[in-house]
Amino acid sequence: MSKLIVIKIGGNIIDDEDKLSSFLADFASIPEAKVLVHGGGKLATQLAGKLGIEQKLIDGRRITDAETLKIVTMVYAGYVNKSIVAQLQSHHCNAIGLCGVDGDAILAHKRNHPVIDYGFVGDVDSINTVLFKNLLDQNISIVLAPITHDQQGQLLNTNADTIAMEIAKAMSAEFEVELIYSFEKKGVLLDINDEHSVIAKLDHKNYQQLRSKEKIFAGMIPKLDNAFQALNSGVKKIVIGKAEDLKQLIAGTSGTTIVNE
Amino acid sequence: MSKLIVIKIGGNIIDDEDKLSSFLADFASIPEAKVLVHGGGKLATQLAGKLGIEQKLIDGRRITDAETLKIVTMVYAGYVNKSIVAQLQSHHCNAIGLCGVDGDAILAHKRNHPVIDYGFVGDVDSINTVLFKNLLDQNISIVLAPITHDQQGQLLNTNADTIAMEIAKAMSAEFEVELIYSFEKKGVLLDINDEHSVIAKLDHKNYQQLRSKEKIFAGMIPKLDNAFQALNSGVKKIVIGKAEDLKQLIAGTSGTTIVNE
Repeated sequence: MSKLIVIKIGGNIIDDEDKLSSFLADFASIPEAKVLVHGGGKLATQLAGKLGIEQKLIDGRRITDAETLKIVTMVYAGYVNKSIVAQLQSHHCNAIGLCGVDGDAILAHKRNHPVIDYGFVGDVDSINTVLFKNLLDQNISIVLAPITHDQQGQLLNTNADTIAMEIAKAMSAEFEVELIYSFEKKGVLLDINDEHSVIAKLDHKNYQQLRSKEKIFAGMIPKLDNAFQALNSGVKKIVIGKAEDLKQLIAGTSGTTIVNE
Repeated sequence: MSKLIVIKIGGNIIDDEDKLSSFLADFASIPEAKVLVHGGGKLATQLAGKLGIEQKLIDGRRITDAETLKIVTMVYAGYVNKSIVAQLQSHHCNAIGLCGVDGDAILAHKRNHPVIDYGFVGDVDSINTVLFKNLLDQNISIVLAPITHDQQGQLLNTNADTIAMEIAKAMSAEFEVELIYSFEKKGVLLDINDEHSVIAKLDHKNYQQLRSKEKIFAGMIPKLDNAFQALNSGVKKIVIGKAEDLKQLIAGTSGTTIVNE
């Protein structure tokens, strides 16, 4: 099986023009088949603010009313997605910008939560691996905005971390998949205030021990739970680290590599 | 050669939710390979207004400064494009929403006008027929927003009529192409105030005669000049008419059919 690298890029990079530009140059230089999943950073919140649309958050998650859905569709699937693809094209990396409705790439359903109405938020049902494989086989890199659809005509705002994981899992049937989560830290830290305390390698046993000792920063727990779940579903390797270190994350010389043994 | 239908949808339909919905149901039911090219109607102007960005028009063409480019990218390639694709998916028409940067679909250059600086406006250089054919061969319909790129990382705002024509011309090497321009009138009218005065069939000789007698409405002249140019470049048939009559336009029982004899 050939290799596929799925990369989730964090909002802190989207918000910084120079960092984004440098990240995209690194991304373009990856010789393997590759997928980039992005959100919209602070741009959606800024646009909502300018338009006087109030943003509601519950547990750090945006409540997506109809107006907010329109904004995230414009910002994520429009401006951010196309700007990223334009930059990749300038590096002679042939990329295609999609969201989950395009070619029926990602089917989802509106979240049905017993207590909280998240609005137009989607939970992923399936990934169209045939579409993705066909594009990748043509040497086209895929850039995905975190908008999905329900097959009934409704667009849905969907967590970009989840999309990256679901793509990595689904594509494992066809490729040897490596999943890279980039965020603002150097990796999983033993001490949240010390960038030098990166855990280079984390297996499930270590993770459980560190977690029981409350050594793992609470914000990392859902990311790591997802990571181990993805490894159980066939993903070969997961690396968490700083987007600025993309080349080293791929080489395994920076960040935290998560393994299943 | 199999048939390909390329349809340009006018802004008056984009602005009317019910008409758009009905048009998309008709579009979805077309059994042949198909491409839909759209603009953004009044939504881009409305959003610019809400954000306090002044819109400049010269000869009816929007001057695209950096802020306006951002808005048209958000509205055309984001909100409008993805909303159309979501509706088509609900009719079980598998469609993919692209703009010209995606998969290097449409390469253009920034317009270099001796007098007017149009800003970030692109004139089309080439169409990626390989990409389009591959998607169409997978039974995926293509929905195109009128944004192109220059391969140097710059997105460019591009006239949707021109994009439809350039796609029709380029795809004529692979398909028997019919090009349909939908707009707010029933077809090319002999009397601009009489919807019953549609010219059913227009060849180049008729056109020259009517034009010399000033029977052709000035606003139609660039559309018709383009149409005859497209016929000379291999497009089989061009129909101009009302989007509400899409099925009849395809059947040739409504609108103006433009032919080359």
